[in-house]
Formats: sequence, structure tokens, C-alpha cells
Amino acid sequence: MFVLITYDVSTQSEGGKKRLRKVAKICENYGQRVQNSVFECIVDSVTLCKVKEQISKVIDAKEDSIRYYNLGNKGRTKVEHIGIESSFDVEDVLII
Amino acid sequence: MFVLITYDVSTQSEGGKKRLRKVAKICENYGQRVQNSVFECIVDSVTLCKVKEQISKVIDAKEDSIRYYNLGNKGRTKVEHIGIESSFDVEDVLII
Repeated sequence: MFVLITYDVSTQSEGGKKRLRKVAKICENYGQRVQNSVFECIVDSVTLCKVKEQISKVIDAKEDSIRYYNLGNKGRTKVEHIGIESSFDVEDVLII
Repeated sequence: MFVLITYDVSTQSEGGKKRLRKVAKICENYGQRVQNSVFECIVDSVTLCKVKEQISKVIDAKEDSIRYYNLGNKGRTKVEHIGIESSFDVEDVLII
């Protein structure tokens, strides 16, 4: 499944900056950052549950906002990008 | 169609701040802000072309990034939100 994770973490407090780093770290473990607070992930449903669980433990639900968009298995075909590319395509061949 | 628009507009320069406001203004005309730079829109394909055209005239493609995610007609069912709600649901009944 192609899942998009977008988030707004309030960085007014020091704790907020810490939460922001943690959320980004979790998302980096499972997906590809395409914009500042937008990650694209290719995950199965079990992994998606793990991601959600980890993130919900980190955020402050009274201050932060996390959104998950499930674009299905053909999600890649439903994305259009204009402008500066942030990094490589999550499904592209990675030559190491 | 349920279309998600996410954007990163570089605000290093004064021009960037102006572009950011313009992009947000265009998105507000067609959809609902759900996070700082994330908008959910219910649009038909003709309207979507209009939105894209207006936005591409405003941004600096060498500095800014715009992503369009087409979640189809049942897009609303593919969204999960955790945390603070930014505002009303784009498909909710609006009582005036």
C-alpha cells in the first residue's frame, strides 16, 4: 500500500521540537520524505499499524495533527509533482 | 474527486512569502486547509486543471514543491486523522 503521512507538530515548546524530530525519524524508518512534513511510504497493513502506534506514542494529540492517506497499491500513479524534487522516488531502483 | 494538495514554498526571500500566501489563497478557493500546507479539495477534473494552472503561474518551480494526490471519488474514506483538528470536514454539512 502507498500511504501518505502528513503532520503538523506544534514547535512552540521545546517538547514540540523534540516531538517533531521523533515523528520525522519514525517516518524516515518507513518511508520517503517528499516535503517538509510529508512522507510517502510503501507499507503493508501490519507495518502501517506499527507506524501509527509508534507515532501516536510520540505526539501530543492536543497540539499536533497527523493525517494518513491510503492511496492503495497503485498510489504512485495518483501523484503529480511540480517544482523542486526533494529526493529520489520511493519506488525507483536504488543503485548502491 | 478528492484531491490532496501539499506544498513547500521556500520563504527565504520576501518573494517566497508572497508566493506562499498566493498558493494558500488559491487552495482556499477550492478546498479546505487541514494542516499548514495541506489542503483537501473536492473538485472535478476541469476545476483541478484550473487549480493547477493558477498555482503553476504563482510558484517558482526552482524553489517550491507542489504535490497533487488524487484519491478518487471515495477519497474521504481513505483518510485517517489523529490529534488536533484544524477545522471543519470538507464534506460535512455546513449550517449557515
